[in-house]
Amino acid sequence: MVNISLLTDFGLEDNFVGVMKGVIAKINPQARTIDITHSIEAQNILQAGFILRSSFSYFPKGTIHLAIVDPGVGSRERKAIIVKTRNYFFVAPDNGILSLTLEKEKPVKIIEIKNTKYFLKPVSCTFHGRDIFAPVAAYLSRKIKPEAFGTKLAKLKKLDSPCASFQGNVLKGSIIHVDRFGNLITNIEKSLFDSFVGKSGFKVRFKNEALDRISTAYVNTLHGFPLAIFGSFNTLEVSINKGSACDYFKARLFDPIEIVK
Amino acid sequence: MVNISLLTDFGLEDNFVGVMKGVIAKINPQARTIDITHSIEAQNILQAGFILRSSFSYFPKGTIHLAIVDPGVGSRERKAIIVKTRNYFFVAPDNGILSLTLEKEKPVKIIEIKNTKYFLKPVSCTFHGRDIFAPVAAYLSRKIKPEAFGTKLAKLKKLDSPCASFQGNVLKGSIIHVDRFGNLITNIEKSLFDSFVGKSGFKVRFKNEALDRISTAYVNTLHGFPLAIFGSFNTLEVSINKGSACDYFKARLFDPIEIVK
Amino acid sequence: MVNISLLTDFGLEDNFVGVMKGVIAKINPQARTIDITHSIEAQNILQAGFILRSSFSYFPKGTIHLAIVDPGVGSRERKAIIVKTRNYFFVAPDNGILSLTLEKEKPVKIIEIKNTKYFLKPVSCTFHGRDIFAPVAAYLSRKIKPEAFGTKLAKLKKLDSPCASFQGNVLKGSIIHVDRFGNLITNIEKSLFDSFVGKSGFKVRFKNEALDRISTAYVNTLHGFPLAIFGSFNTLEVSINKGSACDYFKARLFDPIEIVK
Repeated sequence: MVNISLLTDFGLEDNFVGVMKGVIAKINPQARTIDITHSIEAQNILQAGFILRSSFSYFPKGTIHLAIVDPGVGSRERKAIIVKTRNYFFVAPDNGILSLTLEKEKPVKIIEIKNTKYFLKPVSCTFHGRDIFAPVAAYLSRKIKPEAFGTKLAKLKKLDSPCASFQGNVLKGSIIHVDRFGNLITNIEKSLFDSFVGKSGFKVRFKNEALDRISTAYVNTLHGFPLAIFGSFNTLEVSINKGSACDYFKARLFDPIEIVK
Repeated sequence: MVNISLLTDFGLEDNFVGVMKGVIAKINPQARTIDITHSIEAQNILQAGFILRSSFSYFPKGTIHLAIVDPGVGSRERKAIIVKTRNYFFVAPDNGILSLTLEKEKPVKIIEIKNTKYFLKPVSCTFHGRDIFAPVAAYLSRKIKPEAFGTKLAKLKKLDSPCASFQGNVLKGSIIHVDRFGNLITNIEKSLFDSFVGKSGFKVRFKNEALDRISTAYVNTLHGFPLAIFGSFNTLEVSINKGSACDYFKARLFDPIEIVK
Repeated sequence: MVNISLLTDFGLEDNFVGVMKGVIAKINPQARTIDITHSIEAQNILQAGFILRSSFSYFPKGTIHLAIVDPGVGSRERKAIIVKTRNYFFVAPDNGILSLTLEKEKPVKIIEIKNTKYFLKPVSCTFHGRDIFAPVAAYLSRKIKPEAFGTKLAKLKKLDSPCASFQGNVLKGSIIHVDRFGNLITNIEKSLFDSFVGKSGFKVRFKNEALDRISTAYVNTLHGFPLAIFGSFNTLEVSINKGSACDYFKARLFDPIEIVK
């Protein structure tokens, strides 16, 4: 059984995702699809990239990760790609959606998808998820070699993504995701935080608050009070016990956050 | 492996869909369910019919399409049906939900579901999806013949659906779906458009805009400007590059659209 | 094939559910996951408990029900448990989420999950769904005995839940769920109603309305008028034919409802 994960901004309101699964089932009845999420904000490549980076490694070795946020669909400039890494395959538009993931899992082979033999015909202008990406992932799951789908590509498009970094006694990061519970997820990974703070005291500064310790459970803080915690993505999060940090802080994506020691 | 597709207005907030999948797994552990969507507007049979028409043929031959939007649930007048076509089975209430689909895929056999042997008991007044439709689809996936479920039916209830058509130099259609991205999907199929327009010039008139060409990619138009494109359903769509045509035009379902040559 | 049902308040906007499914597929490729719902109101243990009680028995014998609404995640006080019943397994935090279910399906064995051998490492502070509950359910689906995961527990935490009951000629209940269609679902089960009312006349009193009969189909009532019906959960519901009872009555969770005879 080969698993194909799906990560898109297609939503579940329309038939986009269901039709892609139908296409996959037609080409490889043995393939199993697993949704990562389809609720990426429309055309938000960065958010998709971050979610993919936080998800891919939890899947079985050999999983084909299909990631589609594709504002350039139908244009000639936008390539379609297969990336093979040590443990996974990725099928996606070449628009930077894989950048954050490939920092953690190096590409072994990159193929530009060109072989129309593996496409659904006619190829529409607007839905390559159904006509190109889903069929390619399905054929790939039938053990067809990446090379069969096109030609080698030397370089991928890179995403300009906000990066956390420190200088002197200040570490600067930003909010890059808000989850369902209103938790504010930053791009400050635990390893960066640890190497910056060491054994010093510190303050997490966000908006008008300053937090001077890292919690290990939401409930260790009073109801309605803010806390800093290393969340499930292993990055720093700002949360509220039994509440929404997003509402509390009136926070927005890319709001800056600082650690000062 | 037999696939059962699911298309309903049940949403994913409640346990309706999950329970139907449990019922199916109990009757046929080998059946695989694939969601088309459960976000049909409550009781909107036309929208469901359109989505089913745009989806069914992407599924493997032999798929059992289970389509439930059922305002008449529990009443005696509303029949439950199995329709066999050349390539698929459809299980649904007889309320017109299959009309648009069966224009494209002719019925070979129609059975009115009556055999209570295949129902979950007691049958509730409000949830035939769980008590009748899901079990019937599951038994059908175990290769039980359609005839075993009831008696032949000569005619199905038809849906009054808006149809695009032209007279003289005007083709009239309407918006019959708005997708997640705010694209306005019309009922004007490409074949109808082509036979109407031929090699003439034309204008797509919608609200106060007049568009005189068909785009082949969203990005070929300036950001924020409207465009006409044949979308993934192979029907004419009005879209905005990097925006929502629905918001831009303050459009509503069934708004009229015209092609003038 | 073993089925693992999933019931959480994680939503489908984030990658929480997808990642849990990845973790399960990695440990047991043969396990099949079925979503009950992930739209439980954040941290609403009672709602989750009610939905689980209304769902679990529709699944195949041997199904592992994974139910996670977990405000206490990361704290020492909150235990993680496996409950074996005659027909099912339940994996959940010990916070009362199983109370309503275990009234209907008695526990045969209760195990406190302690054996870290079956956890994903490192265990995060905030996402035991991924790090503890999903892997434990997956190993359990590989027929590892409940005893391998920890030690026996004598007692579970109980949920204070509103209970319908009658005294004299009044039966008092409350709204405990509002479904997608705006139907108001009460905690008055049909058996309780029947034993209270017997052959008497009765009135269902909710807000300013008094209904004196039970309908058997939505469409048997005029459009826009309220009705009382035994719904799919086999409890009394207040509904509107072709409308939302929730909007009509401006109803809220836990609003009281009375039957008077």
